[in-house]
Amino acid sequence: MGQTLTEKILDDHLVEGELETGEEIGIEIDQVLTQDTTGTLVWLQFEALGLDEVQTELAAQYCDHQTYQFDFKNTDDHRFLRSAAGTFGAHFSRPGNGICHQVHKEHFAAPGKTLLGSDSHTPTPGGLGQLAIGSGGLDVAVAMGGGPYYIEMPEVVNVRLEGELPEWATAKDVILEMLRTQSVKGGVGKIFEYTGPGVETLSVPERTTITNMGTELGATSSLFPTDEQTEEFLSRLDREDAHVNLQPDADAEYDDEIVIDLSELEPLIATPSMPDNVVPVSEVAGTDVEQVIIGSCTNGAYEDILPSAKMLEGRQINRKTEMIVAPGSKQASEMLAREGWTAEMMAAGVNFSEATCGACIGIGHVPASDSVSLRTFNRNFEGRSGIEDDSVYLCSPEVATAAALKGEIVDPRDLADELGDLDAPGLEMPDEYDGSTTDLIEPDEAVDDGLVKGPNIGDVPLKDALEADLEGPALLKMDDNITTDHIIPATQDILMYRSNIPKLSEFTLSRVDESFAQRALDADGGFLVAGENYGQGSSREHAALCPMYLGIEGVLAQSFARIHKANLFNFGLLPLSIDEADYQQIEQGDDIEIIDDVDEAVRSGQEEFTVRVNGEWELTATLDASEREREILADGGKLPHTRKQHDAGASDATPADD
Amino acid sequence: MGQTLTEKILDDHLVEGELETGEEIGIEIDQVLTQDTTGTLVWLQFEALGLDEVQTELAAQYCDHQTYQFDFKNTDDHRFLRSAAGTFGAHFSRPGNGICHQVHKEHFAAPGKTLLGSDSHTPTPGGLGQLAIGSGGLDVAVAMGGGPYYIEMPEVVNVRLEGELPEWATAKDVILEMLRTQSVKGGVGKIFEYTGPGVETLSVPERTTITNMGTELGATSSLFPTDEQTEEFLSRLDREDAHVNLQPDADAEYDDEIVIDLSELEPLIATPSMPDNVVPVSEVAGTDVEQVIIGSCTNGAYEDILPSAKMLEGRQINRKTEMIVAPGSKQASEMLAREGWTAEMMAAGVNFSEATCGACIGIGHVPASDSVSLRTFNRNFEGRSGIEDDSVYLCSPEVATAAALKGEIVDPRDLADELGDLDAPGLEMPDEYDGSTTDLIEPDEAVDDGLVKGPNIGDVPLKDALEADLEGPALLKMDDNITTDHIIPATQDILMYRSNIPKLSEFTLSRVDESFAQRALDADGGFLVAGENYGQGSSREHAALCPMYLGIEGVLAQSFARIHKANLFNFGLLPLSIDEADYQQIEQGDDIEIIDDVDEAVRSGQEEFTVRVNGEWELTATLDASEREREILADGGKLPHTRKQHDAGASDATPADD
Repeated sequence: MGQTLTEKILDDHLVEGELETGEEIGIEIDQVLTQDTTGTLVWLQFEALGLDEVQTELAAQYCDHQTYQFDFKNTDDHRFLRSAAGTFGAHFSRPGNGICHQVHKEHFAAPGKTLLGSDSHTPTPGGLGQLAIGSGGLDVAVAMGGGPYYIEMPEVVNVRLEGELPEWATAKDVILEMLRTQSVKGGVGKIFEYTGPGVETLSVPERTTITNMGTELGATSSLFPTDEQTEEFLSRLDREDAHVNLQPDADAEYDDEIVIDLSELEPLIATPSMPDNVVPVSEVAGTDVEQVIIGSCTNGAYEDILPSAKMLEGRQINRKTEMIVAPGSKQASEMLAREGWTAEMMAAGVNFSEATCGACIGIGHVPASDSVSLRTFNRNFEGRSGIEDDSVYLCSPEVATAAALKGEIVDPRDLADELGDLDAPGLEMPDEYDGSTTDLIEPDEAVDDGLVKGPNIGDVPLKDALEADLEGPALLKMDDNITTDHIIPATQDILMYRSNIPKLSEFTLSRVDESFAQRALDADGGFLVAGENYGQGSSREHAALCPMYLGIEGVLAQSFARIHKANLFNFGLLPLSIDEADYQQIEQGDDIEIIDDVDEAVRSGQEEFTVRVNGEWELTATLDASEREREILADGGKLPHTRKQHDAGASDATPADD
Repeated sequence: MGQTLTEKILDDHLVEGELETGEEIGIEIDQVLTQDTTGTLVWLQFEALGLDEVQTELAAQYCDHQTYQFDFKNTDDHRFLRSAAGTFGAHFSRPGNGICHQVHKEHFAAPGKTLLGSDSHTPTPGGLGQLAIGSGGLDVAVAMGGGPYYIEMPEVVNVRLEGELPEWATAKDVILEMLRTQSVKGGVGKIFEYTGPGVETLSVPERTTITNMGTELGATSSLFPTDEQTEEFLSRLDREDAHVNLQPDADAEYDDEIVIDLSELEPLIATPSMPDNVVPVSEVAGTDVEQVIIGSCTNGAYEDILPSAKMLEGRQINRKTEMIVAPGSKQASEMLAREGWTAEMMAAGVNFSEATCGACIGIGHVPASDSVSLRTFNRNFEGRSGIEDDSVYLCSPEVATAAALKGEIVDPRDLADELGDLDAPGLEMPDEYDGSTTDLIEPDEAVDDGLVKGPNIGDVPLKDALEADLEGPALLKMDDNITTDHIIPATQDILMYRSNIPKLSEFTLSRVDESFAQRALDADGGFLVAGENYGQGSSREHAALCPMYLGIEGVLAQSFARIHKANLFNFGLLPLSIDEADYQQIEQGDDIEIIDDVDEAVRSGQEEFTVRVNGEWELTATLDASEREREILADGGKLPHTRKQHDAGASDATPADD
């Protein structure tokens, strides 16, 4: 039986387990990436492991989320990250050099390699045949230490592309169509492998738009085969040596298949406030638009901005609409500036921003109240833009630019009819990517002597090992689809404390209930209760770490988002699945008692746990965890677990004298 | 007797009083400008005046201070400002179009006209012969309503320039030299008029760097004559019609004279944390530099950035130093991009920002702790960068760029010697300023129908008229040189409440004493006590409005900064001067009682007031105020005063029926 491309790459990197769907496997990691909001903890954890040097082929530390630097804490974090990269042997991408996924794609992404990153959009380089997975930062720290990455073998789904995109339809519409049909939960536990004759009609930048936003499906990763497009793209980057020809076997068997006829796609748009609320643009045409933003790791590449520039050339945006362009990388900024496009766009009324995540995570360019913002980003979760009750739509650069010109949402095909001289810009790649690399510091060019920690960079809090008894109140009952943005918001005023856990924890779940953090601290132990898909969204491990710091012992949910569940294990919080009827019956404030000897039950592989509620009724909750995850959980999380292993090893090697 | 240029322009605009030093005069205002942090209140106040349309020749509303838009409040303010400009007939400069003083210089500044602006750096266009004065926003609102602007006739000081600047010395060094010799108090009550043979050796952009930063001397304004340089500059802006030949009479008599030989200047730098801590760059050479920023209304013009670009061409900045360029106007951004300089600077490692005030007011690019930042700005007050204990140096773009290349402070002449091929870039002007005007909305192109007020835009609080008795505790005793940044910090977290006075007031004087605001509210009335030069710095009227809201009745200080004193009258707070011995003797918490019938004494012109402290001892305090200021003060501030006048007029015109 033939192999899927996913299986081939996993096979090449397998160090534990078998490639059976649902079975835990351990794989070797070739490359890691971290960014600035997750990176400080990664490096503090790596430091705690006691190693001198990163063990992976390549590690890269980016500064992209917090580059406006509103506060010394933020700037100190960047300085710490620079010092950590230099000390431990990672590449350091300076603030302003661009968004990790774009810069990684340009400089390091390599077909056939594995990449683990502490950012949920890490799968971006799947567009050029790299198997890239987002994880909690602790997994990245362990991978940097040479440890394998453990994951349940996902289902591999064949997304067969046929035909060719018509004018004005783009790669963004491919992934929006996937979201429309599969939903934000449709990819949980899956890797989407794109195949079929449509693949070769898509350039690598188009493919990476699709793989990037595969994250919004909840997918573990998304993957394209490699071909002439890949080779040519790497060649334009002056990295043709990295090319490897990678295809699934002709007789590969997939767990499922989805067929998309590219030629049938039209301009689509995700309406507020979930990326899968997708409709044809024409359905919402006529809506007034006050703000348009082009950028982010999804659509911030040179090839994403150029079509917009062509549409704007010689025109002016509508006076009631603001338009901001934030390139995904400084290389893109520099090339667009060098070729005159930046000046053209400015003349049309565009405000050029630095190459950062910026508005995509609610930092800057927050919409006005009761106003519509069209963005080429990947997420429009409510409040993520920095204002409650926001109205953020997600679309392609072409649809966004059409709206900026018209002052309202418009199908660009209709705008082209209206204007008469507006041609579909199509996709054009540069002959070569020739931006400078001044802002990318090589590991051997370290700037600092040793680690530089500012006053806001604290220690990593640790949890005690599980004990036999676990009891406490249901401190908060939540609905379906709680995101990590709900658990720990990533807005500027909050994110600046990401290296200061006691302070950051005060904001835990504040979007759901402002009194939660104080109640949790006061309760000294307790549980969270949630519906389906708890913890979807970004990979930030603070969403597990902060509840842990507040004393939360476990989460009872109908289902968990993959990365967040791994983070719960990594920080020693018990993730129990419950059924809908029980979920309905539990009320906030109920007393939750786990009847079993929890420590023993977790370690022994017990799957079903009896939970007594208010001493009155009982439910059965399920712990779906591997043997390894159980040991980590029982030890109080991955760091105590790793330390324990290390101490055991150390004491074996050097028996005590007394 | 001949006239100074100042006298000529004032004479042309005089509607009340005589041009005798120290006497109050009323002058007609031709142009007004407001920016986004002061503008919301200006327009709310203008609205309260009940007029349909701005009465000045020209009004311009800029959005420059808060353009990163971290919050809907900020964006809502911009939308309100756009709607107010459209409703009442002002030009509207969109966020991202640049800093008010730069954009005003480019589009509207005109020799011989008067300009009143609610920003302390309003004197910038003095560099092309416009008499421009910064004031509180309320004065701007009244001027927009057609009312005169009242001011004590300042001393006019002749600053005679001789010789020509040597290589590597710049206009910034001229004003730094002024600060070195005159101090931040040296200009209080003065207008500096630049004359002499050195004037013609300076281009208009160089002159505006000098007039802009004249504000740091405490000067009322700074003024250059016009000449061929002025005409040529206006011609490059396609505004040659605005040119008027303006010179002082040959036999003009000045109150004082300062002589600067330009040929003796060398690169200078203001060390932390006051703009007059000026030393030659060579004195602090060798200091490590982590951050360099070029921009602001002082040195953010095309002509300021171009020399830096030339120095960076083909080079790379030091790896330990970050360099940010924030152009002062989008026109400058667009021109630099069009000519390829933006790409060159990016290649050298520069991070390009939007055209805003940004880091100059502590918004973005906050320095790391214990690190040195070199900036081409005009202020380095402690904490203004966004971090306490900062180390901000002020210098020319050339000195800043040299530091970015070297990674430490270096005299650019020494760096040129070291590198061998680094030429002094000199100053070069473009043939024409050809940026687009898409982001400058004309009054007749109004976008909105009527005023658009978001939920954070509140009412203007009003104070009651003065009564006979005034008594209360000395709630806070402060040192010399308290700035308006101390009184109301302008950092992002605070400034976003500038249209929400109850909330904003919580931060009043928090940099001096965090408990102050609550103590003031609890005390229900009281006084501030300060040393010399109380209220220096920015013109923000919130620095008077917030203490008023908190119940402060008056300020006892050794001396007051001019704009802030006017703001105290405008908001009904009694500004009393006391001598040093009495200042020393008063302690925080002392009971302050003004023995006189305060209302009657203020209105009657009484200058000396008897103040009883703790019922134990007495001091004599002085009220230096014009008849007009006394009426305003006694009525509870300018808005109640103007309303009272209006009501009196209205009741005369339409007697009540009953």
